[in-house]
Amino acid sequence: MNDTWFQRHQPRLDAAVAASASRTYFSAFGESVTPWDHPAEVSRAGTAAFRAWLDADFPIETPGSEGTVSTERSPYGFDLGVRYPRVVDVDALLAPVPGARAWREAGPDGRVGVCLEILDRLHARGFELAGAIRHTSGQPLAIAFSYSVSSALDRSLEALAWSWREMTRVAPTAVWESPRGARLEKTYTVIPRGTSLVIGSAAFTTWNGWPAIFASLVAGNRVVVQPHPSAVLPMAITVQVCQEVLAEAGFDVGLVTLAVGACEDRLHERLAVRPEVRIVDFMGPAGFCAWLEERAGQAVLFTGCPGVNSVVVDSTSDFAGMCDNLALSLAAFTAQMTTAPHNLLVPRTGIDTDEGRKSPRDVADGIAAALDRLLRHDLGAIEVLGALATPAVLAFAEAAARKGEELIASRQVPHPTYTDAEVRTPVLVGLQAADADIYSGESIGAVCYLVETADTEESIALFYLMASRHGAVTAGVYSTSEEVLDEVRDVALDVGVALSENLLGDIVVNSVSAFSDFHGTGTSPASSATILDAAFVSPRFRVVQSRRHV
Amino acid sequence: MNDTWFQRHQPRLDAAVAASASRTYFSAFGESVTPWDHPAEVSRAGTAAFRAWLDADFPIETPGSEGTVSTERSPYGFDLGVRYPRVVDVDALLAPVPGARAWREAGPDGRVGVCLEILDRLHARGFELAGAIRHTSGQPLAIAFSYSVSSALDRSLEALAWSWREMTRVAPTAVWESPRGARLEKTYTVIPRGTSLVIGSAAFTTWNGWPAIFASLVAGNRVVVQPHPSAVLPMAITVQVCQEVLAEAGFDVGLVTLAVGACEDRLHERLAVRPEVRIVDFMGPAGFCAWLEERAGQAVLFTGCPGVNSVVVDSTSDFAGMCDNLALSLAAFTAQMTTAPHNLLVPRTGIDTDEGRKSPRDVADGIAAALDRLLRHDLGAIEVLGALATPAVLAFAEAAARKGEELIASRQVPHPTYTDAEVRTPVLVGLQAADADIYSGESIGAVCYLVETADTEESIALFYLMASRHGAVTAGVYSTSEEVLDEVRDVALDVGVALSENLLGDIVVNSVSAFSDFHGTGTSPASSATILDAAFVSPRFRVVQSRRHV
Repeated sequence: MNDTWFQRHQPRLDAAVAASASRTYFSAFGESVTPWDHPAEVSRAGTAAFRAWLDADFPIETPGSEGTVSTERSPYGFDLGVRYPRVVDVDALLAPVPGARAWREAGPDGRVGVCLEILDRLHARGFELAGAIRHTSGQPLAIAFSYSVSSALDRSLEALAWSWREMTRVAPTAVWESPRGARLEKTYTVIPRGTSLVIGSAAFTTWNGWPAIFASLVAGNRVVVQPHPSAVLPMAITVQVCQEVLAEAGFDVGLVTLAVGACEDRLHERLAVRPEVRIVDFMGPAGFCAWLEERAGQAVLFTGCPGVNSVVVDSTSDFAGMCDNLALSLAAFTAQMTTAPHNLLVPRTGIDTDEGRKSPRDVADGIAAALDRLLRHDLGAIEVLGALATPAVLAFAEAAARKGEELIASRQVPHPTYTDAEVRTPVLVGLQAADADIYSGESIGAVCYLVETADTEESIALFYLMASRHGAVTAGVYSTSEEVLDEVRDVALDVGVALSENLLGDIVVNSVSAFSDFHGTGTSPASSATILDAAFVSPRFRVVQSRRHV
Repeated sequence: MNDTWFQRHQPRLDAAVAASASRTYFSAFGESVTPWDHPAEVSRAGTAAFRAWLDADFPIETPGSEGTVSTERSPYGFDLGVRYPRVVDVDALLAPVPGARAWREAGPDGRVGVCLEILDRLHARGFELAGAIRHTSGQPLAIAFSYSVSSALDRSLEALAWSWREMTRVAPTAVWESPRGARLEKTYTVIPRGTSLVIGSAAFTTWNGWPAIFASLVAGNRVVVQPHPSAVLPMAITVQVCQEVLAEAGFDVGLVTLAVGACEDRLHERLAVRPEVRIVDFMGPAGFCAWLEERAGQAVLFTGCPGVNSVVVDSTSDFAGMCDNLALSLAAFTAQMTTAPHNLLVPRTGIDTDEGRKSPRDVADGIAAALDRLLRHDLGAIEVLGALATPAVLAFAEAAARKGEELIASRQVPHPTYTDAEVRTPVLVGLQAADADIYSGESIGAVCYLVETADTEESIALFYLMASRHGAVTAGVYSTSEEVLDEVRDVALDVGVALSENLLGDIVVNSVSAFSDFHGTGTSPASSATILDAAFVSPRFRVVQSRRHV
């Protein structure tokens, strides 16, 4: 079965391997296709499938569980009511899986075949997954569908492509002959590192989690998926699909396990420090990344946290275009993406543009006008903004607005269906360079700072300072000066942050494209993992040899 | 200069890249050439160069140092008296290096060229280095020369080959065109992870340290070399050569720094936890590996420690050959190699051999006879055994002998030149399977246990238990049964340990050949690093992109 799958999916794998080296455009799962490009009945069936899970026991078995737990509330204003097995016995959960050896013996090709088949099955359930993602994170449908399903699948394929290439790099057997006459036959076998724990994030559980799950699974590891209590359903469906395909191919379904706990169970903390756990993946708040670095030394860590993203605004030949682009990057899911701009660094004396000199206030007004163009119509605005994930986001944005000058106020957008949904436009807060204690803090969304600097030199220095101290996931620059661009590029390399230069149109600083863009660089405190490079996959397996005379 | 070097050394690099995939025999630096294959005048000149360093200030500059420190004593019985700058100011030591950006901008090819040139220069100083290694570790000349210089250079070349392949995997630039019409030019740059700290080991400082130094340096990292106080000189010469070549090519010599402290300075501990340090390499006692896992979470760790190596002795068709092979593996550097057998697991009821049934006592006697054949002549014995590294090794072996039945006693071998050298043959101690508290402890050399088991099933179970609990670096099996071999192979894969089957002749379980054998597997508590695989090199660098419309 898995051999057949490998053969069936091999052209896709080969194309993915090539694209991950050439870095040109490639998407196997329609990264740039919107949900509205699909027939309405497909979308409706997916939504119905999502709704069928609500207020019921999710049909999945977890070793070491007893009773159920239900923890999810949609940011659109209702409890999901899905009940999952609740883990009470971590020893039983982490007990060795009988089928581990068979999974190792399937070899790289066999495991890649199974994983590629899983991706296809997840893709077929795209709208159901998008519904689950939307109603656990608050993402608008377009982002839930294109980013959290399609792009996450492409990223997962990328993980399989890198892994497969690395695992098949070494010959399976060799005859070694020394000049002194010894002759040995050697056998090389890829073995897993150990139990892999994927700790789910609240906001982007599939996009962060799927590449980790598949990079670990394809390397032969047993994977324990521990979702965030607020975003279980997308991962429960994921584990269900993994188990379905593993069972069809005759493998142990225990190779992928769903481990759910109540918030107060602190299951992620209890699991992360267990000696059986040799790999931990987590993307989320810096506090827990640091906790892992301090406590989970027995495991190799793949972490990522938001950091402080800067945009150096120096000059532009398209002021309206720049404002449109920045507005879109702020409005997309209400700046709740870790890739969203955090600080816009604008010289106090203003910037040169095609529309003449523009003061920081003019820049803010330009962005306000662009936001208005983008979000004027409530129905359209909802599809860009989504809902605020939790009441804490609104409180955070309101507190931020009081800390500086509220250059752009937030507007509440009424949702026609989900009247309890908190849909808001983002806040832009004016600060001075001296206000570092405010603009260097971690953001949870819905707010962006416009920081006035002495000049572009100071803007670049602040970009360096923020990224090197607090990390950063993205960086942007607007300038018509080659010298400024060169300088910002050098600083971006110094701090290890991906740089977007003079973006216009609908490619925003937040956009990361599978097979082409690297997400996270692991040189800064913000993250130790890059999605996706060799360092993301190669520590998840080892090659072990045996040798004998021939 | 570095471009020229890259071109000059490229055939060697290409051959190394191919060999690291095919795993067939390859050696650029004469791994299997003995010191006696070289003209005597070369050897004499090297020895003279080593002696010229004694009782003098070593000419090297270290930022943050004040005064000097001298900590080395030869296991052959004299103080080296070399004085090195003593680090007193860790902030100054770790201050940013002005030439870091130029080193990054040299790119993978430029950096590989410089590093390949360094390897050549180290090779040219092979006898000088072998002298320094011998008189800091106690290694016999043959091991110091062939293993700690030639093989270590081959391993370093392997590090460069893996690194170069991984760093050049991604296109330097790409044009990305989305189906929706956006067109971006992207640039991809390899950047270093941060400061790399290589903590030297006492016994095999170059073999453990060089691959780490070159894997980090070639990735663009600044490298701080912190030698063990008992084995500074080999690393001081190494840093001198690195600085010489960097300077010739116009790079900052501060990219490779020697950081020496007195024992009581605990410099390795102070450096390992510094936030600037993002990579730590250390191979040595499990205690400090665990310390690093607990404290140095800010860094990616590459560690290795001895573990408990087992040899399952089930049956053989060449009893004398087996005994000769085991004797050589024990005698080589008096079992002070971490690859040496720790426990020989022999069924109480004896084993079938070509010489009839042999009891555990017969096996011990066979090994005793083989040791006698090998070590009968004192001068030859010294060239196999070397000297015990410290008085603690002798005390350890003597204590071990009292804990069980002394099956083979240690013999003191007089050294004709170095009368204070402690040259000893290894001890074989008889134990029962129940004595796990004795045979599961870390060994520092000069001793091996023969553990009597109920049967081969119990032997295999003990192999599994020791390797999974305490880790292991090597494993061996002697059996004429395909079923037993299969079972041991499966267990070796379960615990992630390289297995040697039925070895005879001078390839022993300790032998690890560059480009073919993997050393360490990182699945067990014994180590997180493999010399050498993709996981050893790829976390040391990142790829960062910038992108713009075209």
